[in-house]
Amino acid sequence: MGTKKQLKLGAMLHGVGGNISGWRHPDAFADASVNFELYKKWTQKAEEGKFDFVFIADGLYITEKSIPHFLNRFEPLTILSALAAISSKIGLVGTVSTSYSEPFTIARQFASLDMISGGRAGWNVVTSPLEGSALNYGKTEQEHPSHPERYKIANEYLEVTGGLWDSWEDDAFVRDKETGVFFDPAKMHTLNHKGTYFSVKGPLNIARSKQGQPVVFQAGASEDGKSFAAKVANAIFTGQETLEEAKAYYDDVKGRAKALGRTPDEISILPGIGPIIGSTQEEAERKYTEIAGLVSIDRALDFLGRFYEHHDFTQYPLDEPFPDLGNLGRNSFQSSTDRMKAWAKDEGLTLRQVALRVATPKPTLLGTPEKIADTLQEWFEAGAADGFIVGSAVPRGLEAFIDEVVPILQKRGLFREEYEADTLRGNLGIPIPVNQFAANKKVVVKES
Amino acid sequence: MGTKKQLKLGAMLHGVGGNISGWRHPDAFADASVNFELYKKWTQKAEEGKFDFVFIADGLYITEKSIPHFLNRFEPLTILSALAAISSKIGLVGTVSTSYSEPFTIARQFASLDMISGGRAGWNVVTSPLEGSALNYGKTEQEHPSHPERYKIANEYLEVTGGLWDSWEDDAFVRDKETGVFFDPAKMHTLNHKGTYFSVKGPLNIARSKQGQPVVFQAGASEDGKSFAAKVANAIFTGQETLEEAKAYYDDVKGRAKALGRTPDEISILPGIGPIIGSTQEEAERKYTEIAGLVSIDRALDFLGRFYEHHDFTQYPLDEPFPDLGNLGRNSFQSSTDRMKAWAKDEGLTLRQVALRVATPKPTLLGTPEKIADTLQEWFEAGAADGFIVGSAVPRGLEAFIDEVVPILQKRGLFREEYEADTLRGNLGIPIPVNQFAANKKVVVKES
Repeated sequence: MGTKKQLKLGAMLHGVGGNISGWRHPDAFADASVNFELYKKWTQKAEEGKFDFVFIADGLYITEKSIPHFLNRFEPLTILSALAAISSKIGLVGTVSTSYSEPFTIARQFASLDMISGGRAGWNVVTSPLEGSALNYGKTEQEHPSHPERYKIANEYLEVTGGLWDSWEDDAFVRDKETGVFFDPAKMHTLNHKGTYFSVKGPLNIARSKQGQPVVFQAGASEDGKSFAAKVANAIFTGQETLEEAKAYYDDVKGRAKALGRTPDEISILPGIGPIIGSTQEEAERKYTEIAGLVSIDRALDFLGRFYEHHDFTQYPLDEPFPDLGNLGRNSFQSSTDRMKAWAKDEGLTLRQVALRVATPKPTLLGTPEKIADTLQEWFEAGAADGFIVGSAVPRGLEAFIDEVVPILQKRGLFREEYEADTLRGNLGIPIPVNQFAANKKVVVKES
Repeated sequence: MGTKKQLKLGAMLHGVGGNISGWRHPDAFADASVNFELYKKWTQKAEEGKFDFVFIADGLYITEKSIPHFLNRFEPLTILSALAAISSKIGLVGTVSTSYSEPFTIARQFASLDMISGGRAGWNVVTSPLEGSALNYGKTEQEHPSHPERYKIANEYLEVTGGLWDSWEDDAFVRDKETGVFFDPAKMHTLNHKGTYFSVKGPLNIARSKQGQPVVFQAGASEDGKSFAAKVANAIFTGQETLEEAKAYYDDVKGRAKALGRTPDEISILPGIGPIIGSTQEEAERKYTEIAGLVSIDRALDFLGRFYEHHDFTQYPLDEPFPDLGNLGRNSFQSSTDRMKAWAKDEGLTLRQVALRVATPKPTLLGTPEKIADTLQEWFEAGAADGFIVGSAVPRGLEAFIDEVVPILQKRGLFREEYEADTLRGNLGIPIPVNQFAANKKVVVKES
């Protein structure tokens, strides 16, 4: 391997799956989203596969039209804390919204996860796309902040959490039994933040972990989202479908980061993938046909409605062109709805075709382990990705990737055979941030 | 043992301890409050000892005068989730405030802990006594709700969390792969709560666990606190010092519960204890003297100030009568400050004496294992307690209790030798609550 740049891998733990009817597959565990033994098994498998992290997505609002996984699933901070206790090297990354939580609480819970796990926590910062989330947090849907305002809130929120995470310098806790000095008050820092959206005194009641601060992930694809990611993120979860799109996104975000004075290498850009692996191309195709065949058009229309403020699509003819919905849904799912509009326009798709494509998208990555490894290598070497977040498009999809694709990537010198570190930052190759309040700030040099 | 009523035991996991200078003891782990391996060891030890639960206390505001454990410790929901993964029978109880959190989030996190642990979660509901908590949550100290208002908020909060926990009937998730029916919409219940303090639509995005709902603990000792506990709690953490006080409290709260139509047996009243155990009375006394001698008067005055809005007690002569402070601190710590006033009045204590008694209270339970078991049995049989929450007043205090006192209680037929159940409710002997929205409510009979 030597000094050859290594790709990064994350495992999306997604219960019964993002595929709305995947739970119907004969090999699927239909209770997977609330089955701790399964989450434990997946995490330990991903750690055997030397993955950088497991990833838990989230949402704050459901209706009876929500997809199965959303209806009944673990909450990210609790499940990640449980997984911390049964793993030792793999990172633990979870989604929490800055629009419906308190920075003091969230800084604390991630810092506590970081301490419990010995420096393996990561926070995927989202701003809650669904307007319905407001209804579970004392507001009306009209009071759900607009897309640009959500990012303003998120920016200030991260100033607060970043400041709270630096409440204590690394050597603040002296714990000298002889003199009775438990801590050095000069190394405790009270934030006293007073801003537009938050006012938080501090200090946080927990110290920094071995990795300094939890790693910040971000997934925004809009203009505001990309600027925010370039400013605050150390890892970005993206959803590009073609190499060209992915490369354009990669260059765009790394360029923005550089313009802000950041080192582009400190940000890992990680497209999400849901490969379908077969011993032959035909077997992989058959697996896709099997899983896609489990979705009914009714369920697909429900699923589509979620992107458009739960719009009722049953009112339109199925085999006519996709209806013009104006800006409906754009405040919540800007990039997704723009993409659907582009399909309808460029490819002339009908409502049925859009609904089925959205409900059971055919993965770009479909074929033999060699073929999938080839594509990942191509994206990686073309500068379109620093690694990937691997989801399961079919039952046992993650296990198949670990057993069959990872060894190929390792043989090619693209992926580690042993963990370099026991912190998430250490494995992602991100430096420990200097404490912003420390009197003698030392430049921390990234370990090679 | 037969049908003899059994006492209940909880273990307080308290890091470097509630004793402000206990961390200086040669046998103490000075980093205990953020040492996961230690929390894991304690939990597994308590499970070997057949304890009903471990207990994690909490607070939301620190200053440089806070006691060592408060400055740098795990957050309850994350540490309990981690402990869920390394235990299998013991309950997992943690403190969360209803004054500075959102019911949708807290209902979710406790439900998720309950699901991860297979029905072992408990929530100790507190209302945040410290006015400073407001400063970490966007408010001024003046905006911290008053004592009666905090209890009004808590009452409504528990209506919301109780309703959210019943979002799904136990058989709502059908998961029929053949028909494609994942859940029965008639068994999903949307709360639509609109009240004075909260407006929460629901449903919660997680189902009920094996024990139905997390067990509600409460610790209020004031009038409002007792009424609230009698209404909502299944277990009460109290702090009475004498058998007479404890019995009066016990009868008072059980009487209030009965007046509200509840079965008094459904509420376990559990005084907190911090026994010091020695092979002789002299050895126990020596252990107390050793730990008390680690506290300086300066630290004791700081600690005292915490009960009085961080009042500076260094301005008073140490060996004069305890100063008259009017109602200072009463909004936060009503029962504690009333008790100190009573000491000053009834026993004529000086400031130094009050400060040292508060900082290193001499445990009532101090002596040989037999003597401690005798006292616990006396309280239990006198109807002053249904069990106890055991803290460590000295290093290895919990371990000593498990190794030396528990076997005596077992021999006397007062405490289990094996768990009766693998849920917290099952072990505490509390019935699974009927889902309030179920069409055909069945009376669930308590397992004997």
